[in-house]
Amino acid sequence: MEEKTRRLEEVPGFRTAAIEAGIREWPKPRNDLALIAAESAVPTAGVFTRNQVAAAPVKLDRRHLKATGGMARAILVNAGVANACTGEGGEDDALGCARRLGAGIDVPEEQILVASTGVIGTRLSLAKMEKGIDLALASLGKTDPGDFARAILTTDLSPKEASAELDGDAGVFIAGACKGSGMIAPNMATMLAFVLTNAAVAPKALAAALKEVVASTFNLVTVDGDTSTNDSLFLMASGVTGVPAVVKDSGRRYDKFVKCLYRVCHSLSAQIARDGEGASKLVRVRVIGARRAREARAAAKTIAESPLVKTAMFGNDPNWGRIVCALGRSSARVDEGRVSLSLCGARLFEKGMPVDFNKADISNAMKTEDIELEVDLGLGKGEATVLTCDLTDGYIRINADYTT
Amino acid sequence: MEEKTRRLEEVPGFRTAAIEAGIREWPKPRNDLALIAAESAVPTAGVFTRNQVAAAPVKLDRRHLKATGGMARAILVNAGVANACTGEGGEDDALGCARRLGAGIDVPEEQILVASTGVIGTRLSLAKMEKGIDLALASLGKTDPGDFARAILTTDLSPKEASAELDGDAGVFIAGACKGSGMIAPNMATMLAFVLTNAAVAPKALAAALKEVVASTFNLVTVDGDTSTNDSLFLMASGVTGVPAVVKDSGRRYDKFVKCLYRVCHSLSAQIARDGEGASKLVRVRVIGARRAREARAAAKTIAESPLVKTAMFGNDPNWGRIVCALGRSSARVDEGRVSLSLCGARLFEKGMPVDFNKADISNAMKTEDIELEVDLGLGKGEATVLTCDLTDGYIRINADYTT
Repeated sequence: MEEKTRRLEEVPGFRTAAIEAGIREWPKPRNDLALIAAESAVPTAGVFTRNQVAAAPVKLDRRHLKATGGMARAILVNAGVANACTGEGGEDDALGCARRLGAGIDVPEEQILVASTGVIGTRLSLAKMEKGIDLALASLGKTDPGDFARAILTTDLSPKEASAELDGDAGVFIAGACKGSGMIAPNMATMLAFVLTNAAVAPKALAAALKEVVASTFNLVTVDGDTSTNDSLFLMASGVTGVPAVVKDSGRRYDKFVKCLYRVCHSLSAQIARDGEGASKLVRVRVIGARRAREARAAAKTIAESPLVKTAMFGNDPNWGRIVCALGRSSARVDEGRVSLSLCGARLFEKGMPVDFNKADISNAMKTEDIELEVDLGLGKGEATVLTCDLTDGYIRINADYTT
Repeated sequence: MEEKTRRLEEVPGFRTAAIEAGIREWPKPRNDLALIAAESAVPTAGVFTRNQVAAAPVKLDRRHLKATGGMARAILVNAGVANACTGEGGEDDALGCARRLGAGIDVPEEQILVASTGVIGTRLSLAKMEKGIDLALASLGKTDPGDFARAILTTDLSPKEASAELDGDAGVFIAGACKGSGMIAPNMATMLAFVLTNAAVAPKALAAALKEVVASTFNLVTVDGDTSTNDSLFLMASGVTGVPAVVKDSGRRYDKFVKCLYRVCHSLSAQIARDGEGASKLVRVRVIGARRAREARAAAKTIAESPLVKTAMFGNDPNWGRIVCALGRSSARVDEGRVSLSLCGARLFEKGMPVDFNKADISNAMKTEDIELEVDLGLGKGEATVLTCDLTDGYIRINADYTT
């Protein structure tokens, strides 16, 4: 984006905090508790993991968003402990946090959402969290831009932030931050994303916009196909602006909001793929010509998750056979004789037959941080783009050598 | 198995050959063409890749087995070139081989089956193959035990052979050989398996037995989830024995044959997992207590294909969180509160809650070539075992560094 990136901390109608609560001690103490608080209960939407094993905070958030019809006052996030696979005790801990925070700002617990990322199977220390919540409340609004994005990191190498302005609505914008190597690092679970806007959007329209945008952004990013117990994406709209509200989930104003939200979520999700564990490249897998969009997504995902394709990208190996092979085992309809394939702009396979190409040239072209892979199934108009990263020895090192 | 391993070369009613045809020149010339020939057309069953992009030999074999009703005289195998993604020219090459071999032993081409493994997208040299076929025919029956198993290897580290005797039928046995790191190595495709028996089995019963056994052996082995364009498994029954034939696909004699076939296929498929590219361990993922067998298979496969679980096995990391997480995203019904999990015989997770265990002890127990991982879903009687291997830096090296 050409515009200057605006931070979460700058969105009118919200205050944030980032403090050290002592939850995450590995590898060394740092800020591990962050808070977003609106001035009043505001329209809030959330999408959560589809994993059948959902962490305690996810269960609580689903319940609270349902109870309030999509309104929330604050979101509390901790890094270090995922509060997943912790049974009823873990659910009590999540509720305890919501209660303490609710009491601190004098709102019912249903208006509080919580998010956790970190080790699975370890209980949160409620005592530490309660002390942390008090400290966070005391420091609300005193953080520097970027503090929030840094406090939520676990094995991520870099903070991930993005923003975009609503076309023609001066001063109205959306800003977000997220964490996640796209999967579970050494027991460090989760993709978490927080997106704030000062636009005025009704709860139902907000939920619809988020659902629509997630399908073509976060849900099309894959690092290794593993979906965490804690994955959550939140969107809050403070409405602190003079511009008319988006009230319906259709129409010009809604479409404009969706377009802006897409830009933010697309940027955040691409940052996740690029920062995948051990990744040296962002790989863009584009499938066109599928019978329908659903099949294009299935084909692109199967290619993007193939360890053989991902290691070939790491090795600058224009190994189109692996790509065609992954394609053939996807659930998309494939007619070998109609398939064409390009890598870094060069055609390698044309209507079912290999094309003569200079391997060294293509391999050189692959020595970049951005690989473009395009497959044309030649069967219809369905298309989709999935973002992933390469599979490197760094991934093995990070994931095999952590606890022992 | 306690019995001495019998070789393919020893099965009455068949002769084999293994010669150098000059198809596979990398990394250095060696035997790359092998042949199995029965004394007459005998009952033969085959199962092939489900990949939509099927290699030319697979297409030919399906056609020939259908045309003959499951009878074949000979199977020709080459290593070095997969004859996949080679268009109509490739299909002509496969047919040309079948014709040359058929002419050489004076049978119609429909009685000939062919199998290829190697680089995708490269044409077979029909001239070299024809010379090779003549040479192989001239040396039929002159090979040493084990020659066949060695000639079909590509990136495999070791030949894979197994045999078993039919219970109570003296002198009747099944012997097989296979190749494959379970996936596609540097453009080197394919799992190929060849199983021979001197038992007398009618074509329909033979096909039924193979289908039944494959479902619980080869189809439950996964190295990296990639299915090749060339995967093929053949079973030929010469019937050169005094024992009554298996004519129906049910009954005591059929069951006995299936049991014996299972032992051979189970051993061969386990050898494939253990020899997976870069593998340092065989990992046995057993799921019990699923609502049904299908769900147990789905759960076990999702765990066995999770890169995070596989790297944890490599790192001797008793990281049960990754296992539960993979379980939760599988298509099997999972109720977190009922899930229990054991690793190397030690209980790590019990009915949805972590168990206190000594991490160093379990990690030490994991320092073995055979890891046992058992998950109890606590929901029903469905069970399945999937075999896989760990994911190591060796895998990355082999697959990233080949062509460039």
